[in-house]
Amino acid sequence: MIYFDSDYMAGAHPEVLQRLVDTNLEHTVGYGCDHYTENATRLIREACGAPHAQVFLLVGGTQTNATIIDGLLARHEGVLAPESAHINVHEAGAIEATGHKVLTLPQHQGKVWAEEVEHYINEFYRDETFLHMVAPGMLYISFPTEYGTIYTLNELEALSQVCHDAQIPLYIDGARLGYGLAADECDVTLKDIARLADVFYIGGTKMGAMMGEAVVVTNPTLLKNMTPLMKQHGALLAKGRLLGLQFEALFTDDLYMRIGRYAVDLAMELKEEFTTRGYETVVDSPTNQQFFRLPNDLIDRLRQHASFELWGPQGETHSIVRFVTSWTTTYNDINHLLDLI
Amino acid sequence: MIYFDSDYMAGAHPEVLQRLVDTNLEHTVGYGCDHYTENATRLIREACGAPHAQVFLLVGGTQTNATIIDGLLARHEGVLAPESAHINVHEAGAIEATGHKVLTLPQHQGKVWAEEVEHYINEFYRDETFLHMVAPGMLYISFPTEYGTIYTLNELEALSQVCHDAQIPLYIDGARLGYGLAADECDVTLKDIARLADVFYIGGTKMGAMMGEAVVVTNPTLLKNMTPLMKQHGALLAKGRLLGLQFEALFTDDLYMRIGRYAVDLAMELKEEFTTRGYETVVDSPTNQQFFRLPNDLIDRLRQHASFELWGPQGETHSIVRFVTSWTTTYNDINHLLDLI
Amino acid sequence: MIYFDSDYMAGAHPEVLQRLVDTNLEHTVGYGCDHYTENATRLIREACGAPHAQVFLLVGGTQTNATIIDGLLARHEGVLAPESAHINVHEAGAIEATGHKVLTLPQHQGKVWAEEVEHYINEFYRDETFLHMVAPGMLYISFPTEYGTIYTLNELEALSQVCHDAQIPLYIDGARLGYGLAADECDVTLKDIARLADVFYIGGTKMGAMMGEAVVVTNPTLLKNMTPLMKQHGALLAKGRLLGLQFEALFTDDLYMRIGRYAVDLAMELKEEFTTRGYETVVDSPTNQQFFRLPNDLIDRLRQHASFELWGPQGETHSIVRFVTSWTTTYNDINHLLDLI
Amino acid sequence: MIYFDSDYMAGAHPEVLQRLVDTNLEHTVGYGCDHYTENATRLIREACGAPHAQVFLLVGGTQTNATIIDGLLARHEGVLAPESAHINVHEAGAIEATGHKVLTLPQHQGKVWAEEVEHYINEFYRDETFLHMVAPGMLYISFPTEYGTIYTLNELEALSQVCHDAQIPLYIDGARLGYGLAADECDVTLKDIARLADVFYIGGTKMGAMMGEAVVVTNPTLLKNMTPLMKQHGALLAKGRLLGLQFEALFTDDLYMRIGRYAVDLAMELKEEFTTRGYETVVDSPTNQQFFRLPNDLIDRLRQHASFELWGPQGETHSIVRFVTSWTTTYNDINHLLDLI
Repeated sequence: MIYFDSDYMAGAHPEVLQRLVDTNLEHTVGYGCDHYTENATRLIREACGAPHAQVFLLVGGTQTNATIIDGLLARHEGVLAPESAHINVHEAGAIEATGHKVLTLPQHQGKVWAEEVEHYINEFYRDETFLHMVAPGMLYISFPTEYGTIYTLNELEALSQVCHDAQIPLYIDGARLGYGLAADECDVTLKDIARLADVFYIGGTKMGAMMGEAVVVTNPTLLKNMTPLMKQHGALLAKGRLLGLQFEALFTDDLYMRIGRYAVDLAMELKEEFTTRGYETVVDSPTNQQFFRLPNDLIDRLRQHASFELWGPQGETHSIVRFVTSWTTTYNDINHLLDLI
Repeated sequence: MIYFDSDYMAGAHPEVLQRLVDTNLEHTVGYGCDHYTENATRLIREACGAPHAQVFLLVGGTQTNATIIDGLLARHEGVLAPESAHINVHEAGAIEATGHKVLTLPQHQGKVWAEEVEHYINEFYRDETFLHMVAPGMLYISFPTEYGTIYTLNELEALSQVCHDAQIPLYIDGARLGYGLAADECDVTLKDIARLADVFYIGGTKMGAMMGEAVVVTNPTLLKNMTPLMKQHGALLAKGRLLGLQFEALFTDDLYMRIGRYAVDLAMELKEEFTTRGYETVVDSPTNQQFFRLPNDLIDRLRQHASFELWGPQGETHSIVRFVTSWTTTYNDINHLLDLI
Repeated sequence: MIYFDSDYMAGAHPEVLQRLVDTNLEHTVGYGCDHYTENATRLIREACGAPHAQVFLLVGGTQTNATIIDGLLARHEGVLAPESAHINVHEAGAIEATGHKVLTLPQHQGKVWAEEVEHYINEFYRDETFLHMVAPGMLYISFPTEYGTIYTLNELEALSQVCHDAQIPLYIDGARLGYGLAADECDVTLKDIARLADVFYIGGTKMGAMMGEAVVVTNPTLLKNMTPLMKQHGALLAKGRLLGLQFEALFTDDLYMRIGRYAVDLAMELKEEFTTRGYETVVDSPTNQQFFRLPNDLIDRLRQHASFELWGPQGETHSIVRFVTSWTTTYNDINHLLDLI
Repeated sequence: MIYFDSDYMAGAHPEVLQRLVDTNLEHTVGYGCDHYTENATRLIREACGAPHAQVFLLVGGTQTNATIIDGLLARHEGVLAPESAHINVHEAGAIEATGHKVLTLPQHQGKVWAEEVEHYINEFYRDETFLHMVAPGMLYISFPTEYGTIYTLNELEALSQVCHDAQIPLYIDGARLGYGLAADECDVTLKDIARLADVFYIGGTKMGAMMGEAVVVTNPTLLKNMTPLMKQHGALLAKGRLLGLQFEALFTDDLYMRIGRYAVDLAMELKEEFTTRGYETVVDSPTNQQFFRLPNDLIDRLRQHASFELWGPQGETHSIVRFVTSWTTTYNDINHLLDLI
């Protein structure tokens, strides 16, 4: 069986695992106060070109989103997000469980447009009625989006400007950040992300770590009490050094971006071959998630040898499927899959 | 340096780590639907003598307490707990953050007494005023307690009976469960715990796992929607099999109890030698945490070679310290420490 | 100045006020345990044909919605509601503040369609993904809707059936219930509402009371702990008898429906005259709220003599306005307004 | 029957009621934007000597406490309060329902001591452990306390100083404020309260209003978004002018303090006569609540003619009872009661 279900199906990238094995018997203090976490922080700051940024290591994506959004918003505020946002659809109401509404914007292949954000905010404050409504207190986007698409630098700068003008923070969910930055067409760098977002996270779970997400806070006036906030949200790992070690490995010898580029290269190969053979992509994704519209009988045949996600029927004869590559995918896997179509 | 700070200072027990390494490159489905988690569930049920119990694997202790307590309580209810309870003191308000009050009972070396629980409940419903107060909706205890003490079987049965009579669930926080069950004086078995508690958790983080706590639900009418509840609480690990694998290892060849017994043996050695030499224990703990009242100059001398927690001054010349043993502690460490006193 | 802004601009209907004045110096116990509240409960049960229903008197609409929805939902559930629902738009996030998501359905002149509710629920449980999403735990509708429209008996029965089949409660927000029941085209009675909804509320604030909303719970298995729940939500009025007295007055000599019919009659007069003179209604509302599309210069002229709400521009030359009638509106007011157009 | 149960058993003081009757048919805008509320705000500011204070009118005490405390605290903070505080005991967990812990301090006849508050805060920040605990984010006290006692000016100044030094706001629950200010031994004025508290509320419900509590915010950096916060908490009354009118009446011709002084005079009469006849007070309360230790047979006899609260048994033969006076109590009531003892 070959696996294209997701990028969190295996354990840790060998270089990450080795780091955990090598240090296993050492004693360090808990809760992220250890020197590995300190070192990971240093490496992430350097990679981000943000020497004064705060870095916090949490365990998982939903947990990170809930903790950060809860920390950024005032009680009466909600979070603006595209309708397709992970926080709006697939986090079991974790944001609302902290007391905050997700305020939805139209999504365009998973992205929001700066002018629509601006329009929303302007309309909101148009008259006194707003006092009875949920104030937009921050903007959430993801890079790449749920559909694997990425923002251009221009688009990100416009969103950042709109947020800045409205005095609300811009938060970027980077669960698959490396796959976005590694895309051929990507004109955004990690330093741009750090410059334009007030807070963002560098996803580890889907990029070669066992688990772990690195939150980077570049706006120093926000999130002043992260340790108790993380504890309260069940996001403060006792053996915090396990997260430190993994991010240390990911940010050593460019491993994070190597993983990103490798998976994206395979995904592009897949995309080209599928489209060459006449199968349509549903979204033009430049990253490690590829969405195709395939005939149901082909899908049935593929499923005997390959495992991947079915996103639902399209008409009577076709369905949408998702193929995801990662550091575990091999060229053999790709060739094997292509042989089947 | 020798380490007695806590039982979560190193990585994973070698047998646990090996299991993670051996399976690292396999692909499994996420979120705990994999066969390793299924197998861990089977092993835990067997060890508990509870073939129909539900088992859920979460990441950390505070997260587990918040998720379970939030799931068990109705909106207007609170959780009864000893004043010294971890949920009352050291979880940064995680329980209150889910909307529930911690209702405190007097603690006796970390334990609550059945008659005091019963009295609280009876007094509460004495007159109509209770409608303006927070109803006791469950009882939280820990085994062992914050001070390393353990309940006798009689005490546990009495607490279970009181809860049963009041129709509220009994929940046991077993962050260090194995150290309690391994105590010489312990007349409680894991099967007793499973029989007497409605819900409890078997701590992994402090018992040889990298991370992970196994929640066991023996009362089938409670907690019917754990998956979305865990997701909402940021407690559903993407690579859930990592938890499954670790508990599989811990419940293979009796590893969990081997770790418990080993650490307790060392702790008893420590206790005996300290008391023999005239140093008082503060609490008579039969488990892996030992609390001594030591002269400050001795403490200063010890700290040059050993690392341990200072719990605060007692008078002008003495302080209370805590020594914790674990699977990483060696007899050499113990002897080294004893040589210093 | 003549007033058409809303139905909560004056004090209490004279018959309601008189009841408060007459009883002002009496002493009664607090928190709704008095005999006036008991009597109001009896009268409401009779009017609803629901002798075993529970009745609870709360102070305001948003408070009532938040209390009831919080009480009905399990932690992982959300509330289905039309996109235009008051709870979704104009309650400042009160529902989310209790930890629950508002799951929106398309609105058709403020109403939801039974087949769309059914479709949503079926799609939701289509595959295992639902465990990562917010489960629809109840349906919220309002009668009349935000746009003054009302459900037919057939529509309500279909919605009730869908909820029953899905085993989720149907909750009806009746902030303006009397204006809906009094509509000429209404084929629904208060007894139908009580038969088809699991929980609903009879609005007082907008129907002649100073304040107060009467929640009726006809499904006895729901909302078993309303007193502490109300207290927790700040919804338990100390001088609870003030609410009891007002609902006693409203349900004596058919006052509630008299107020409804009177206001609706005036609204119909208004509607007919406006449409006769060529002004379009935006929604065909049979109740006390009327929405017209008027030329901006007419609006400017009217505003010199009348006060009403502007709902926003429609094109360059027109805007939408709302006129609301109530027990305080007189035929003189209507004639005066009509003279101006 | 003569009534000493509480100060919220009757309707409104005649001068308050008259104001509501006189204005009943007027039309005003809703939600507290009317000119009566504006006028009440002006009168309250004057009485407080705080021309720039913000004033907000809410409906009830528990609601007010939950709204204010939720607005003042950051997510990871809790509220310091005496163990006997209303928010800790008799608000059904309304504070915890907003996500915040009540951090209890020892109570001394209902009061907290400045040095104990200071000690708590100092101990809290003693070492790094505090990051795992709930930070004290504000201090809640009541004036008078649950036991009718009052703080001296010195005590209040010390508490205010401690809060100021710790940079946390001081919030005073003034549900019965007027009865405290009217006490013979009281050396605190309303202006002192306004000067020393960051936020406090002037209770209306128990001081002659039908309902209503006036929140005064003297620290302009706090509570910047009260309208949506109140709405979210179900505390924004639609017919807000009803609260404005009542506070306008209470702050006209010194009515608020007249009510306070009248009730306190009667309470002092009661106290003197009871103590003269050898019955002990349990607390030396200078305000409108009096607590006596009475023989059970006397209590039984009194209950045939008078209604009052039983606070629980004291030994086998005695019990504690509470007598409360208000604007509805008459000298005849007092004499009648005294005739019975």
